[in-house]
Amino acid sequence: MALSEFQLIDRVFAARAAARADVSLGIGDDAALLSVPAGMELAVAIDGLHAGIHFPEDTDPKAIGHKALAVNLSDLAAMGADPAWATLFLSLPHPDETFASHFADGFFSLAERFGVALVGGDTVRGPLCAVVQAHGFVPAGEALRRSGARPGDGIYVTGTLGDAGAGLGVVQGRLDIAAPDGDFLRNRLDYPEARLRTGRALRGVASAAIDVSDGILSDLGHILSQSGVGGRIEIGCLPRSEVLLRTLPEPDGINLALSAGDDYELCFTVAADHEPRLQSLAEGLECPITRIGRIESESGLRLIGPDGRIYACDGSGYDHFKGTDNGRDDGDH
Amino acid sequence: MALSEFQLIDRVFAARAAARADVSLGIGDDAALLSVPAGMELAVAIDGLHAGIHFPEDTDPKAIGHKALAVNLSDLAAMGADPAWATLFLSLPHPDETFASHFADGFFSLAERFGVALVGGDTVRGPLCAVVQAHGFVPAGEALRRSGARPGDGIYVTGTLGDAGAGLGVVQGRLDIAAPDGDFLRNRLDYPEARLRTGRALRGVASAAIDVSDGILSDLGHILSQSGVGGRIEIGCLPRSEVLLRTLPEPDGINLALSAGDDYELCFTVAADHEPRLQSLAEGLECPITRIGRIESESGLRLIGPDGRIYACDGSGYDHFKGTDNGRDDGDH
Repeated sequence: MALSEFQLIDRVFAARAAARADVSLGIGDDAALLSVPAGMELAVAIDGLHAGIHFPEDTDPKAIGHKALAVNLSDLAAMGADPAWATLFLSLPHPDETFASHFADGFFSLAERFGVALVGGDTVRGPLCAVVQAHGFVPAGEALRRSGARPGDGIYVTGTLGDAGAGLGVVQGRLDIAAPDGDFLRNRLDYPEARLRTGRALRGVASAAIDVSDGILSDLGHILSQSGVGGRIEIGCLPRSEVLLRTLPEPDGINLALSAGDDYELCFTVAADHEPRLQSLAEGLECPITRIGRIESESGLRLIGPDGRIYACDGSGYDHFKGTDNGRDDGDH
Repeated sequence: MALSEFQLIDRVFAARAAARADVSLGIGDDAALLSVPAGMELAVAIDGLHAGIHFPEDTDPKAIGHKALAVNLSDLAAMGADPAWATLFLSLPHPDETFASHFADGFFSLAERFGVALVGGDTVRGPLCAVVQAHGFVPAGEALRRSGARPGDGIYVTGTLGDAGAGLGVVQGRLDIAAPDGDFLRNRLDYPEARLRTGRALRGVASAAIDVSDGILSDLGHILSQSGVGGRIEIGCLPRSEVLLRTLPEPDGINLALSAGDDYELCFTVAADHEPRLQSLAEGLECPITRIGRIESESGLRLIGPDGRIYACDGSGYDHFKGTDNGRDDGDH
């Protein structure tokens, strides 16, 4: 029986799937057969991206492939899990082999960097959409949860905030930032890094963690509510890239750093008596870490400006692409 | 921070998620944390359904919820796995709580019957689409694969074939079959049963298995190609429901039974010396099983008519909804 064009695309993906000793049976049967090492819990995260909703319509297919996997690896990073396997549901309006090949380039470049094997999935006709489930391992009882923050803990973030939001502004023509700065920002939107090494290093150190997919205000808010605490952020401490600092006037840059999504940095909390250990870890990580505030017992999140006063954030002007009602609140169910 | 309407829908799903002792952390964090029992392999299958492509646009949301899970449980059944957990990526054009509630009714009614816990997912804005990953356990080394069929093995199917294809014809107005027969057929399309009990019973008995999602010709073809064998089907043995027999003239009913998809029965092979054991099992199963042919060493699939001659099948006339190029070839990557 002749293979359909979508089946041919499936074969392109199957041919690039990595081998792993814990994969008894990968692509090509009704289900994959996998082994979880003794003493490990399995961490699973599923997240999907729609064209025009979760990425701009004109996004490079390679970037879509990268990002579809990266946003899920970022969830594993936020649990402190080591990635192992992925599955992929990809729908395309037409069986476009060129698109699929570029998508696969982005997907597998990232998968190979972290030793992730594609173990199953499906390629179908439909609106452009990629749904990935990532699977990882974490020693039983050692995962980083959202619920462990306690008053007095420091609040930290990896890398810099707001770049991806500015990149979206560039793509949508709302921000006029020429290359190379504009390219840097768009790259931060299209090729987020999953902070897997940091997440792993934070086991036993961080009291809570989440990845910053919807903006630090929203995502830190989940830590606060699930931990039953409040907190404060020192606005002046929010880490921003040199590009963001030189291209966006205040308060726009600060507001993006607070409210824009898609940075996929980690936000985590560390008890005061673990903070020296965190500092000693920091040199070995893949990115800088910055303390931006502290957990407090009083509920709610307080933003403190450089003048010591409460800072009023207007994040509403920057994120037309991702409204409050867009459902990108990863992992909430 | 106020919850978005999609977040409220997420909560509806979270509220109905079952508890299981092997779920350390379910819905509500960056990833779920799960434990696979010692000695078990993890079987995972991911499959998604688009409105207008994998189900008719006017399908009852309850049926969509049922089917999105059922097609994945069917994949686990075809591996002989016991289902445990599911994740769900659901996109809706609007945050329609009524739709979501009915979808959840269908999803959880089925999940509860088989003790499946929803452990994670995401509800987002986008074209109507549901992607589910099902996770199950199978004792290491005992899973049913597509590749184990050997010459002389009997070829079997569960239940009846062609009903779902006829149901699609009814929905699309190509077949004029009044209630209650029309309703029976549509129900077979909308509410497929996953043959989990049969799949489990076939461990150690069947030499190969697959679920019939794309039609017996296509799906048995996967067993033959992956096992490096051929086979023959006795057309007169194809099990058909009384409704199909009385409502469709020949050769239409036979052609549907051969070529139409969406029945989600199991097709499996059994070595001759295991066939007595299969017969002794059969009474305890949830559905009849029927031997329809035998595996042969000569490659290719031969259809033998009641007159003993080669039967020429024209399956092309019935399945406009699912063309050969629709990519519904579950599990091929």
